Amino acid sequence: MTVDLLETLHLPEQVGSLDEGQLEQLCSEIRHTLVHFGKHHGGHIGSNLGLVEATVALHAVFHSPEDRIIFDVSHQSYVHKMLTGRAQAYIDPEQFGSVTGFTNPLESEHDSFVLGHTGTAVSLATGLAKMRDMNGQHHHVVAVLGDGALSSAVAFEGLNNAAAQGGNIIIVLNDNEMSIAEDQGGMYAGLAKLRASNGTAQPNLFNALGLDYRYVEQGNNVHAMIEALNAIKDTDHPIVLHIHTCKGLGLDAEDKQHGIERGQCEANHWQNPLRDEHSPLGSRKTYGRAAMAMLEQRFDDEPGLIVISPATPGSNGITREFRKRAGAHYVDTGITEEHAVTFASGIAKAGGRPVVATSATFFQRTVDQLQQEVALNDTPVTLLEFSAGLSATDNTHSGAFDIAMFGNIPGLLCLAPTSGEDFLNMVAWSTSAANEHPVMIRVPGPQIIDADRAQGLFKALTDQIDDSLPASVTLDAMIGHEAAAAIMKTTAALNETAATQDLHYRHSRVVQAGQDVAILALGNTMPLGREVVEQLAQGPHPVHATLVDPVLFSAVDEELLAKLAEQHRIVVTLEDGQLEGGWGAKVAQSAERLAERTGHQLQVICVGGDTEFTDRVPLNELNNRYGLTTESIIHRIRSVAALTTAER
Amino acid sequence: MTVDLLETLHLPEQVGSLDEGQLEQLCSEIRHTLVHFGKHHGGHIGSNLGLVEATVALHAVFHSPEDRIIFDVSHQSYVHKMLTGRAQAYIDPEQFGSVTGFTNPLESEHDSFVLGHTGTAVSLATGLAKMRDMNGQHHHVVAVLGDGALSSAVAFEGLNNAAAQGGNIIIVLNDNEMSIAEDQGGMYAGLAKLRASNGTAQPNLFNALGLDYRYVEQGNNVHAMIEALNAIKDTDHPIVLHIHTCKGLGLDAEDKQHGIERGQCEANHWQNPLRDEHSPLGSRKTYGRAAMAMLEQRFDDEPGLIVISPATPGSNGITREFRKRAGAHYVDTGITEEHAVTFASGIAKAGGRPVVATSATFFQRTVDQLQQEVALNDTPVTLLEFSAGLSATDNTHSGAFDIAMFGNIPGLLCLAPTSGEDFLNMVAWSTSAANEHPVMIRVPGPQIIDADRAQGLFKALTDQIDDSLPASVTLDAMIGHEAAAAIMKTTAALNETAATQDLHYRHSRVVQAGQDVAILALGNTMPLGREVVEQLAQGPHPVHATLVDPVLFSAVDEELLAKLAEQHRIVVTLEDGQLEGGWGAKVAQSAERLAERTGHQLQVICVGGDTEFTDRVPLNELNNRYGLTTESIIHRIRSVAALTTAER
Repeated sequence: MTVDLLETLHLPEQVGSLDEGQLEQLCSEIRHTLVHFGKHHGGHIGSNLGLVEATVALHAVFHSPEDRIIFDVSHQSYVHKMLTGRAQAYIDPEQFGSVTGFTNPLESEHDSFVLGHTGTAVSLATGLAKMRDMNGQHHHVVAVLGDGALSSAVAFEGLNNAAAQGGNIIIVLNDNEMSIAEDQGGMYAGLAKLRASNGTAQPNLFNALGLDYRYVEQGNNVHAMIEALNAIKDTDHPIVLHIHTCKGLGLDAEDKQHGIERGQCEANHWQNPLRDEHSPLGSRKTYGRAAMAMLEQRFDDEPGLIVISPATPGSNGITREFRKRAGAHYVDTGITEEHAVTFASGIAKAGGRPVVATSATFFQRTVDQLQQEVALNDTPVTLLEFSAGLSATDNTHSGAFDIAMFGNIPGLLCLAPTSGEDFLNMVAWSTSAANEHPVMIRVPGPQIIDADRAQGLFKALTDQIDDSLPASVTLDAMIGHEAAAAIMKTTAALNETAATQDLHYRHSRVVQAGQDVAILALGNTMPLGREVVEQLAQGPHPVHATLVDPVLFSAVDEELLAKLAEQHRIVVTLEDGQLEGGWGAKVAQSAERLAERTGHQLQVICVGGDTEFTDRVPLNELNNRYGLTTESIIHRIRSVAALTTAER
Repeated sequence: MTVDLLETLHLPEQVGSLDEGQLEQLCSEIRHTLVHFGKHHGGHIGSNLGLVEATVALHAVFHSPEDRIIFDVSHQSYVHKMLTGRAQAYIDPEQFGSVTGFTNPLESEHDSFVLGHTGTAVSLATGLAKMRDMNGQHHHVVAVLGDGALSSAVAFEGLNNAAAQGGNIIIVLNDNEMSIAEDQGGMYAGLAKLRASNGTAQPNLFNALGLDYRYVEQGNNVHAMIEALNAIKDTDHPIVLHIHTCKGLGLDAEDKQHGIERGQCEANHWQNPLRDEHSPLGSRKTYGRAAMAMLEQRFDDEPGLIVISPATPGSNGITREFRKRAGAHYVDTGITEEHAVTFASGIAKAGGRPVVATSATFFQRTVDQLQQEVALNDTPVTLLEFSAGLSATDNTHSGAFDIAMFGNIPGLLCLAPTSGEDFLNMVAWSTSAANEHPVMIRVPGPQIIDADRAQGLFKALTDQIDDSLPASVTLDAMIGHEAAAAIMKTTAALNETAATQDLHYRHSRVVQAGQDVAILALGNTMPLGREVVEQLAQGPHPVHATLVDPVLFSAVDEELLAKLAEQHRIVVTLEDGQLEGGWGAKVAQSAERLAERTGHQLQVICVGGDTEFTDRVPLNELNNRYGLTTESIIHRIRSVAALTTAER
């Protein structure tokens, strides 16, 4: 299929002058382009395929950039990008990846914001509209929101406040009957009734919030969409245009065979390219699955062991098969991080041991609830923090800020395991009756899975293709019968104990004893720490350094630090997150206190990330930038050693 | 009036055995007690007066503690406390203050949680109900929620998820037609229609969320409430009981004269005791008013200058008179911090200069939006952070965590002014066209207002009674004509410049140059820093220390630190917030980097708060505990000096 028409469009205003046939052809070309792009590059294809006609209609009716169109979360903005001068990034394989997966003002004046967290579009649009009204201007402001996003906290605040503000605010609700996984919550039955009644049923949630409302059943018909948008374009009050679309429309049977539509929703949410089809699972899915396999074995005996996912189960290894088997032991709360964490605190207060699983970047939304409802109330909630640490991700989804953000909350024990087995043991302990406090566990990253696999662990998942792995792979198969049995036995013992005072995971571990230099390698940096220690021992001036696994990042083991100070001059802290506010800063502060008391000043070298947002920068490049490399660390150690020797 | 009946009740189950006349007498005694308590001790009297009958009815129908009753925000739990063995804390002036203003499991088994932030009760109740169902138990779970709380993000997530979960969850919606200030948002017209129609009108917001619904017009009739609760008590699905109550019911004309009901809502929200009636305004209201007076002068010329308050204007000096005059330049978003900050980013993106004003403890709810929608999008939003720093407040409302929480967000400039004039200048700059980035400003605390008043500043507010001060007091009257004129002139000039590169407030200031010891006194600790410097210069071994105003807490002025290192051995950082993750930790880390480069090791002494929650501990006691006293600091400095001298 050709993309002749799409290639001729360089300005969105050209869309407005197309005739009916051309509009249909354009939609067809776009859909074809998306499917091809999804197969070969990957991306959030499902929702974009559903939004083809609506986006074409938006640009036919409105005049961007004077009129502002804000895409919530913004990963459904591919078609918008194609129509605003960026089509080649989706057509030409050479240019795949040249634009981000999210809107970005640095790319185009047609993008107002960088957005990647759910539910903020209505609030942002309300702000743009407020300013327009204060300036006495008359352009239009449109927010495009998915039905899954509707259940998130801030979206609701935005809708309620848009209604109160008044004026021209157009909210396009893209209802494809799916969130990232299934839709969750009481409101969705109401949306179904609205769809079934062609938008006439009551109670109407939007009317109840004081918003005007229209329904378009044919959300994938470009003419119907243009007509509907023209009819409400000049509204003098906020209005919701509820459109019914089909997520993944255009994927055919062949595509499904190629794994593009594996699973009704999740696989369509983020589409991996075909070249990744035979890659082993990443650390996130592997460790997530292993944790679930471990917990699952205990479900029958422990009614309070409940896994909670705020809408992103698949990417964290919580497979559909697991969810089915878990039954009431699994709760998907929809895209509602605040609720998920608060809900967990309620379960824990009643004696349960809930586990909340989501990404570091989404836990950011729960800082207040983590502090108030969880930490202040001291409830034994376990938080599995996925995708923490430095990575090549988009600037909207970075996990580099977690140590500063969660590691300073009073009473929240934050753990950074240095192996998969360590991780599983921590989860086993924190979810047992022996633990009575909130615990966050940083799920190990790619650095750790490589080390684990080198030892033959998690092999059962290594050679398998993505989600097609039978979900019944057991813990035994992942880490061996002995290790699996040991974890299950320990957990049973911990549940028997119900320890009143636990000292688990409150101390750091000396991995290898040495002198002069101590390397404190937090979580994912342990393989780097090992390499530094090995290399320091080489060459003409060998240093036999001490290697420490800090274990926790919410505190410093000051007793150990004091001991280290006796035979070490240099302490190096490694962390794969932002240095400011982070763990190394705590060590530096502890070292100063120690010096104040004893007069003995350690040189602390903190290695970690800068205070900055990074956007799809390869991890290697970040590690180089921040000096998280063996070479740089050894250079710094040797420079300081030379300096202090010279001084003496 | 006697309180004979109330005094005989020690267990909530006794309420269930009272006859009709006794129930009415009990309500009357409770109301009388609340009014008296409010006049003489102060508290959240308004909502409690409205909830008297509902709370008595709850305890008559349900059997606490088996049945769980969760009060949202929990400052409307006074009646519940009276009925669960804590009546004397409200009756006996000697015992006033012996219980907290919030529910607290340490006080009573009838309290499940410590709660002080809005909207979490439904999620917590849903968690308790989940665990009950998993255990196969059959008790009841009740959440009591105000109409103002309904507009907050997490409350909505909770309602939507309670509906999805099912089972016995009873949500009592206490509708007194008011939030803290007026209700805000499109949903409130819907609530009014429900009230007008005796609960029969559609669209019904709760039905739209999939929840069952009942209405009780006579929420202040104990018999009607008992009947309504009995009717739904054993529901097998979540249900909202919408009750209409009167906030402040029982305050009479005489009370109003005594200032108890000054203002329809705000004064009823938090009732100051009569003894405070003639006290001067605190720092929070004073500086808030001064900032508003300054901004107000610019409204006519700057359409984009917009003040946003998420529901707490009064306590931040945003008076009703100001709001009236400000018109469209003021927006109350309801209790919706996430929306408020996101909305502001939208305004700023469109060229405006929005100002979001709320407490440190409530900004905690916006960490994700501050990072993503504001900092990542680099929009010039000004955040006025009230009640930051150590204080004697409840554990739910502490401002001690702000430096760690906000000072580590990339791209967010965080300022800590050391005087009222400094503060106003910072606000003037950050809201001018010359500033193009997000700025958080810590509103100065009580330590600073004392210093200001000692210099005769803000006197126009000093001698005035609380809210009765005419709102028209101008900036001139507060800080003198010259200073006021200078600020306005500077702002005008900054607006002309629209500087492309601003270096404002990126550097620390040397207040007094000295040697050997440098005191870096952040924000509110400046008076303490001055005293330390003065005292160090006394006695037989005088030290002429340097005094530095750090100005910002989001970074360290490393250039200045390097200079200090040349003539100083000891650097002392003072901050009135949590040390871990805070500003002193950044200085310690910077000092280590400096030592690594130069071999010159400074001794950094960081003084600040521990990582802990504190509950109504007097500020003096906290300062003593953390060594934030002249004596302790001087002792530490002299000890280190002796130590290093001895070593040399």
